[in-house]
Amino acid sequence: MVTRLKRFLIGRPMKSDELGEEKLNKLKALAVLSSDALSSVAYGTEQILLVLIAMGTVALWYSIPISFGVLALLTILILSYRQTIYTYTTGGGAYIVAKDNLGTYTGLVAGGSLLVDYILTVAVSTSASTDAITSAFPVLHEHRVMIALLMILTLTILNLRGITESATILMYPVYLFVVAILLLIIGGAYQWVTGNVHAQTPTYGAAVPGITLFLLLRAFSSGCSALTGVEAVSNAIPNFKEPAPRNAAMTLIMMGIILGVMFMGISLLAYAYGIAPAAEETVVSQIASAVFGRGIMYYFIQAVTALILFLAANTAFAAFPLLAFMLAKDRFLPNMFMVRGDRLGFSNGIIFLGILSALLVIAFGGETENLIPLYALGVFIPFTLSQAGMMKRWITKKPPGWFPPFLINTLGMLTTLTICLIFLITKFSHVWTIFLFLPAVIFIFLKINQHYRDLADELRLDIATDKPRPKGSVIVIPVAGITQVVRNTISYAQSLSDDIIAVYVGFDEESIKKMEKKWEEWNPGVRLIVLRSHYRSIVRPLFKFIDTVEWKKAETDHVTVMIPQFITKRWWHNLLHNQTSLLLRAYLFARQDVKIATVPYRLKK
Amino acid sequence: MVTRLKRFLIGRPMKSDELGEEKLNKLKALAVLSSDALSSVAYGTEQILLVLIAMGTVALWYSIPISFGVLALLTILILSYRQTIYTYTTGGGAYIVAKDNLGTYTGLVAGGSLLVDYILTVAVSTSASTDAITSAFPVLHEHRVMIALLMILTLTILNLRGITESATILMYPVYLFVVAILLLIIGGAYQWVTGNVHAQTPTYGAAVPGITLFLLLRAFSSGCSALTGVEAVSNAIPNFKEPAPRNAAMTLIMMGIILGVMFMGISLLAYAYGIAPAAEETVVSQIASAVFGRGIMYYFIQAVTALILFLAANTAFAAFPLLAFMLAKDRFLPNMFMVRGDRLGFSNGIIFLGILSALLVIAFGGETENLIPLYALGVFIPFTLSQAGMMKRWITKKPPGWFPPFLINTLGMLTTLTICLIFLITKFSHVWTIFLFLPAVIFIFLKINQHYRDLADELRLDIATDKPRPKGSVIVIPVAGITQVVRNTISYAQSLSDDIIAVYVGFDEESIKKMEKKWEEWNPGVRLIVLRSHYRSIVRPLFKFIDTVEWKKAETDHVTVMIPQFITKRWWHNLLHNQTSLLLRAYLFARQDVKIATVPYRLKK
Repeated sequence: MVTRLKRFLIGRPMKSDELGEEKLNKLKALAVLSSDALSSVAYGTEQILLVLIAMGTVALWYSIPISFGVLALLTILILSYRQTIYTYTTGGGAYIVAKDNLGTYTGLVAGGSLLVDYILTVAVSTSASTDAITSAFPVLHEHRVMIALLMILTLTILNLRGITESATILMYPVYLFVVAILLLIIGGAYQWVTGNVHAQTPTYGAAVPGITLFLLLRAFSSGCSALTGVEAVSNAIPNFKEPAPRNAAMTLIMMGIILGVMFMGISLLAYAYGIAPAAEETVVSQIASAVFGRGIMYYFIQAVTALILFLAANTAFAAFPLLAFMLAKDRFLPNMFMVRGDRLGFSNGIIFLGILSALLVIAFGGETENLIPLYALGVFIPFTLSQAGMMKRWITKKPPGWFPPFLINTLGMLTTLTICLIFLITKFSHVWTIFLFLPAVIFIFLKINQHYRDLADELRLDIATDKPRPKGSVIVIPVAGITQVVRNTISYAQSLSDDIIAVYVGFDEESIKKMEKKWEEWNPGVRLIVLRSHYRSIVRPLFKFIDTVEWKKAETDHVTVMIPQFITKRWWHNLLHNQTSLLLRAYLFARQDVKIATVPYRLKK
Repeated sequence: MVTRLKRFLIGRPMKSDELGEEKLNKLKALAVLSSDALSSVAYGTEQILLVLIAMGTVALWYSIPISFGVLALLTILILSYRQTIYTYTTGGGAYIVAKDNLGTYTGLVAGGSLLVDYILTVAVSTSASTDAITSAFPVLHEHRVMIALLMILTLTILNLRGITESATILMYPVYLFVVAILLLIIGGAYQWVTGNVHAQTPTYGAAVPGITLFLLLRAFSSGCSALTGVEAVSNAIPNFKEPAPRNAAMTLIMMGIILGVMFMGISLLAYAYGIAPAAEETVVSQIASAVFGRGIMYYFIQAVTALILFLAANTAFAAFPLLAFMLAKDRFLPNMFMVRGDRLGFSNGIIFLGILSALLVIAFGGETENLIPLYALGVFIPFTLSQAGMMKRWITKKPPGWFPPFLINTLGMLTTLTICLIFLITKFSHVWTIFLFLPAVIFIFLKINQHYRDLADELRLDIATDKPRPKGSVIVIPVAGITQVVRNTISYAQSLSDDIIAVYVGFDEESIKKMEKKWEEWNPGVRLIVLRSHYRSIVRPLFKFIDTVEWKKAETDHVTVMIPQFITKRWWHNLLHNQTSLLLRAYLFARQDVKIATVPYRLKK
């Protein structure tokens, strides 16, 4: 039943050599990998205006130079990351680049930062998308946590099905969003050119009394949240069709251009239409209603905006499992993140991301807006480290013509480093927790790594000398009475060893005597040892007995405890049996150095 | 850690022969067993008035004859149950009495009815108690489900500790409640006698236009909810100190007198003070504030009322595990309900009751008032069956002087049967679900019984002829590489059998060749079989292979699969290992008729 449900949700299992088919072409890659970056358009300009409005509407003109600043930063980042893609053709995520050039620890800072960030991405994006939906249908407001959780569940299932199929489903909304925003920009520009806009525009360049550098930097760093998601392409190079690096670089540049045009378009329109941020309506919504009125185009734009925010979460579902895979390959995460599932995706990473982001949504009751600065900082730290790694690489290797790309990476690194510092200074109250969880995550990475290395040392075997050495063996069979189950178990034990002890735990003298007498009559060829229990526990006397056996036997002998297990015809029959077996097995696992043999007894009814 | 927490909450384990100490003396028994019955005083009169007020305040005088009717019914029930206690000295619950005299099915109707009823008792009483608390502290209102759940948790822990200790804790509030209500009655009577009451009393015997028999019966049946809990004493005879029947009978009569006095007192005061039921204030609260004013006595009465409702739930915690034990002994419930825990209580029954009532509270969001009629009916069905059983017994056995007790039981049976019918007729919309769940519960009882009987047939063994028969044996060891773990497992296998096959599941030709070569070099004296997997699954190819082995070998041979299991030093290391082992074991358990031997490998670090 479970299997059938799984098939229905996930689809048929796929062979390993079908892996090639799952690679992405440029258009699909753009859809899968850029929704996070593009969705930032929905709130990037607004974040800038929200800071400036503190100084009055007269200060809003600053949004234009700040937006150009963000655009310049975007250009630098794209150029910088383009170089990374060509250098790291098998996947140049910040983790790889930083580890490769700046050492393991720096790599782990980048990797840990991104890993946590992907979880935040899912939580923040699904919550924001839920907000968009509940703004349209206020009746759903009280179910917001449930809606966000449903989104996460949907994304998890889509991604477990495999990325190509997901890409096909996800392509249309992403392109619809791009078309919608471009239509908005063209329509808005047309109205403005034809002189149909009669809004009060703040005077460009007007002096604003009391404006501080701190405030402008804060506004700039807020605008930088529009750049989150740019790194997705370079992390996902192995997912591209061949030639992967070229396709990835093209995709990155396409994404950069679209993002830049959309972001600047929105910023300029906001200025031209004299729009100030409002608590009850988003900037995009204000522009849309000013340009098109509250008609079908307005609702179309709002709908695709909600959709793109939902899909932004999907970027994390593409990126997280890959990063986890790389960390697991380097033994910083458990092996299970390396296993490809039935549909060739890294199922464990997908499920892990789904669960953690769902917990985050539940913990914050769907109000994850305050996590946005933390999330942005979590992106800019690996940005910085990745570019610093590239700088180091150029200096160390000095290939022909290395200086211009070195300069580009240096410029990029300095810019993102500055933004990190600006975040820390201007928004410390929102981002200080990074000093808690980043060390924690890295500590976990190192602990896991240490354990796997210890394990490898311990399990290493010298083929020449370490051969198996058979030893003696004694088998212990706990019995509760004389039944077919006991006969079955003893038969099995006798096929393995001559040294068998049946053990009976009795609670009172009467039952003990009865058992001893019956055993003698039956005479199965196995001696019976009777233990008395004063605490109605079967496990504890048995334990003591096994200790004694281990002590009496030579140290080299194996002790096997045979536990019968009923295999029932119907699942609910399990509730009627096997409790003692389960308990016994759990205790023996945890405490004793004995072998446990489970002997199934299949019930006919 | 878990063990230490358990010790702290539950206390040290107790020996079986300490059981005697846990027996109850009369005073403690009265506290443990009567809180359910006595707490009914808090709402019994009110239930009657609530029905009558539909005809206006002029109809309220009917509460006096109706209350006397309920008192008469109480007297009959007490006398009737007193006879049961003396006849069934080892515990005369409705289940036993009905089964014994009217057959198994009737017994199961009574038992199932009571079992469900105890769950309702806990849910209804804790919710009602929560209401009392939140009425006093409205700020807690939004946490009512949490408070009710905390109460259930507290009761579960207290009962897991053992009944005597619980009794000691619970004695004081019960007696405080009795004292408080008696003080209220005395105070109220004194005020009335001294002529200090100037309330408008409805004229006794005044004609009420439009009053119907249906309405009066409905009021009477509502008043009967005050009698729930009376059966607790006769079910719990084995918990009494010797002479158990005499002590139980005395306790029953004491309880009946106290209950009767308190119930009539409240009813008479309500009439004398001209009190009408109000939505926002309970009848007891109205009387208390009329008699004492809103002073310290008033709050004292309210507090102990809240407390007694909480303790009423405890009656169910005493009764449910005992009934479940009896049903399990007769093989109608799983064996686990027969196991006495560390502290000699029937832990599984206690935990089961706690969980089910908690689920009920959650499902109803703490609003369980509508369950009260269902809960009352669930008590009167076993009342009726129990007394019918006693009637049958007198007629069949005809001991000397059997006729007067037969008459008493007949009178009791007819009365409770009538009340059942009144409930069904006047409150059908509240109680119809009993026609769903009572058959369901009985169906489950019978299914379980059938299964255990089939099992006993299947496991029965002829001592003279059914001896163990050793057969051949083959051991299969899945290997993932050549490590100390594999060496350890092979060493162990060689101590048991000469027929050992190592199986390697490879995903690609390269790794398969490497493995084959290395194995040859190592030469552990065990042949290696290589399986190719196209779906990255280790389990499926292994399965097919085991099927082949089973088919190739003689039918009589045992197939053992040895699965290595890392025993880690720290609990979290488990997350890094054993996933494949777990999966393999789960699959093999569910589908294959093979023996599974778990071979521990203890990690040093």
